[in-house]
Amino acid sequence: MRSRKVFAIIVAGGSGSRMNSDEPKQFISLLDKPVIVHTLDAFHKADDQIKLIVVFPEAHMEYGMQLLQKHGYDDKSVQFVAGGKTRFHSVKNGLSIVPEDAVVLVHDAVRCMLTQELVLRCITNAENNQSAIPVVMSRDSIRQITETGSRNLMRNEIRIVQTPQAFDAGLLKKAFLLEYQDSFTDEASVVQHLGHEIALIEGEEANIKITFPMDLILAEKLLLQRIN
Amino acid sequence: MRSRKVFAIIVAGGSGSRMNSDEPKQFISLLDKPVIVHTLDAFHKADDQIKLIVVFPEAHMEYGMQLLQKHGYDDKSVQFVAGGKTRFHSVKNGLSIVPEDAVVLVHDAVRCMLTQELVLRCITNAENNQSAIPVVMSRDSIRQITETGSRNLMRNEIRIVQTPQAFDAGLLKKAFLLEYQDSFTDEASVVQHLGHEIALIEGEEANIKITFPMDLILAEKLLLQRIN
Repeated sequence: MRSRKVFAIIVAGGSGSRMNSDEPKQFISLLDKPVIVHTLDAFHKADDQIKLIVVFPEAHMEYGMQLLQKHGYDDKSVQFVAGGKTRFHSVKNGLSIVPEDAVVLVHDAVRCMLTQELVLRCITNAENNQSAIPVVMSRDSIRQITETGSRNLMRNEIRIVQTPQAFDAGLLKKAFLLEYQDSFTDEASVVQHLGHEIALIEGEEANIKITFPMDLILAEKLLLQRIN
Repeated sequence: MRSRKVFAIIVAGGSGSRMNSDEPKQFISLLDKPVIVHTLDAFHKADDQIKLIVVFPEAHMEYGMQLLQKHGYDDKSVQFVAGGKTRFHSVKNGLSIVPEDAVVLVHDAVRCMLTQELVLRCITNAENNQSAIPVVMSRDSIRQITETGSRNLMRNEIRIVQTPQAFDAGLLKKAFLLEYQDSFTDEASVVQHLGHEIALIEGEEANIKITFPMDLILAEKLLLQRIN
């Protein structure tokens, strides 16, 4: 039994434009169920005491709720919150129903391949260090665009950032009182702007973001391997 | 008919340690043929006048040559060169047999999913701009490790670097006269160290580097889709 409550804010804001599909990525069917249901299942299996908050854009709310209900997630097991104009505003809306003394995980709905181990690792580390951001090494060289062109970054200094990004809820809520900036590309960047260092933990290579059709192909094959 | 000769240096240096396999990644079988044969085929199909140079580590040379011969690449169609202690030294060895007035492409043997279109785009752009480096946007947030922790980089300033990296051969050969540095993670970084700005061109999402077992799974599915 955990001493602190754990909340997971699942951000489902994508419009699906890069998938050659009118259907937002989180709703696309992957084997037997929509992408977002795989995501919710991973949290539920990791610890069924985790409070699930799903943030849908207003326009998707009704459809999303109906779809989740078909797969066993109704408004008793999930709290639904309407999103805002950016990811920052959507997460902020979700955070409004999270108590100060909880641990909170913010996760992309379209990262449906996360394991129970990763969820638990994020929670434990955030309990100990106030934050826990899963990262992996880059397998490719990375360039940064500069005023005059671009420059090579040292690959061993680079980390690819994943979610769930886990925090002490009080800390994250305080950070989200900051005024929105374009540099807030994820929750870690908001907390760091408050002056807090971020604790990095080991992510998972397979914890991919379903962005392009080829990601769905890979996810399907990986899921089939896990079942068999 | 091109006015300039084109050489492709295929660097096959991997040891296979991340693949849970004793077999180096470039030799692993993918559908009907080894990874490196898919790579060579892509260049050959793009333009059968491209001169192929394969750089194998000394330890893999005999095995590699035999394997390629089984798949139609003998020492008449491919020039084999022994690699050095780092990628830089391997590429330098390959470059030693490339004439100054050629266009040269340097490519990872394990990026076997590149298309003919990408090969031709690299050549054309390098002819016009002395260099052509294929890049794609990052779908994930990126952090840079700093002395005190880490910092968020602006995602729109970041590019993920692929190969083939294409250059005016005279320029690349001149750059490779520089003394080796750890910051030389790819050919672009060497040329830039010479003081030359690098021309970035559009890469391909599917142009992945076979690094982990899941990459092989994805590559197989994508190849099957291309065939059907």
